[in-house]
Amino acid sequence: MGPGSPDYLTVQAIETLKRVDVFFMLEKDGRGKHELLQMRHAILKHYLGDSGYRVVTATSPERRTLPDGYQETVRAWHNTKRELFAHLLAEELADGQTGGLLLWGDPALYDQTVTMIAELAEAAAGALEFEIIPGITSVQVLTAKHKIPLNRVGESITITTGRHVEHCDPSEIDNAVVMLDYNASFQRFTDQNMDVYWGGYLGCADEVLISGPVDSVCDELLQTKARVREAKGWLLDIYLLRRRRDDEAS
Amino acid sequence: MGPGSPDYLTVQAIETLKRVDVFFMLEKDGRGKHELLQMRHAILKHYLGDSGYRVVTATSPERRTLPDGYQETVRAWHNTKRELFAHLLAEELADGQTGGLLLWGDPALYDQTVTMIAELAEAAAGALEFEIIPGITSVQVLTAKHKIPLNRVGESITITTGRHVEHCDPSEIDNAVVMLDYNASFQRFTDQNMDVYWGGYLGCADEVLISGPVDSVCDELLQTKARVREAKGWLLDIYLLRRRRDDEAS
Repeated sequence: MGPGSPDYLTVQAIETLKRVDVFFMLEKDGRGKHELLQMRHAILKHYLGDSGYRVVTATSPERRTLPDGYQETVRAWHNTKRELFAHLLAEELADGQTGGLLLWGDPALYDQTVTMIAELAEAAAGALEFEIIPGITSVQVLTAKHKIPLNRVGESITITTGRHVEHCDPSEIDNAVVMLDYNASFQRFTDQNMDVYWGGYLGCADEVLISGPVDSVCDELLQTKARVREAKGWLLDIYLLRRRRDDEAS
Repeated sequence: MGPGSPDYLTVQAIETLKRVDVFFMLEKDGRGKHELLQMRHAILKHYLGDSGYRVVTATSPERRTLPDGYQETVRAWHNTKRELFAHLLAEELADGQTGGLLLWGDPALYDQTVTMIAELAEAAAGALEFEIIPGITSVQVLTAKHKIPLNRVGESITITTGRHVEHCDPSEIDNAVVMLDYNASFQRFTDQNMDVYWGGYLGCADEVLISGPVDSVCDELLQTKARVREAKGWLLDIYLLRRRRDDEAS
């Protein structure tokens, strides 16, 4: 579904919406719940009008932290979520009907819904088919809005999580997009000749952009994040960390 | 412009096409020249019809290998290319007009046109403004067609070049998309419990997909690449290399 605005949908995605009988929406508890569901409804209304499709909304299972660690926690959570999908498909779709899931950004990026549906399709042995429609990600909107390429000449790109950069050796990061960072881990990258390109609510009406040397903008970033999160009740943000090369001015 | 088919364009991209007075196309010598230009013309014709815009086609400067190494070679090539853009903008756009460049996939990924235009805009001190419209990349089409996510749980993603994987320590690659690989460097990853997900001409009519353990599909991949390149005269392909985890069956 891209990053929120109907304008980011591809023609392929719009044509696919028209073939769907039932849209499944998972709502997560939390203060952004209403707004995030609303953007999905806005996309459907924009391209399909008010009729011809059905929406089934279910509550997304909570992730409960297990004592066995992160992988086990996620595994148990995914099992519960896959069971929910199995239940929804069995109860809400008639033979020959098509269900649709609007996933933020691109379904391939830090979302395991694809894996769960693939497992259900495998178990269904031909009774369930699925396809994936690629979409614009917040990574792409981040670089477009900051007017930078994702890589410099010849350079590799890392896409990683706040969970990773919170603990990794900072020197291993040269050019990395950080997603799902709940602890402002960019603070670990001061005094290292690094630039940051940050975006919040990318592709949405409330989009905020900040960029500059980490050393200079770190405080502004912390204050802005606190302010917008307080104002809206939730924040989705990502950033690119880039180590300056010898030939680049600071 | 996405990976070739008009269906991959976003609504934002289509709306942007309508605001453009002159489209600049750079043609590269080589056997795919006609077909790659043709896809751009097909997109324009599909969304704009036959009139109301002008197309200016120029020959893309050749990259001449310099004795000073890769970075110097690229730097000199980019300087020539930037001068060409400066010339085209000065000669072909009247005051107040808008020029457009259809770049394959997403402008941020392994393409420095953004940097060149940003430098020209900075030099023009307000007389040239530009914006970037994100597009679907072959990375996204690759994972969509293979029906896999780009990462497993908690995992980082690397996007890199054939130039890099040709020489790197294979053990540093766990989950990496390889682009611009002219030397079939996936051959370096046999006997290492790696899977490969490969795609050629992704998003185009001639799309080819192959996946499986590198050990099993390496020969098929080499043969397929040779065959389709021979048949069409050119090949654009990418692949994902993924190291199997202990809990994954081979």
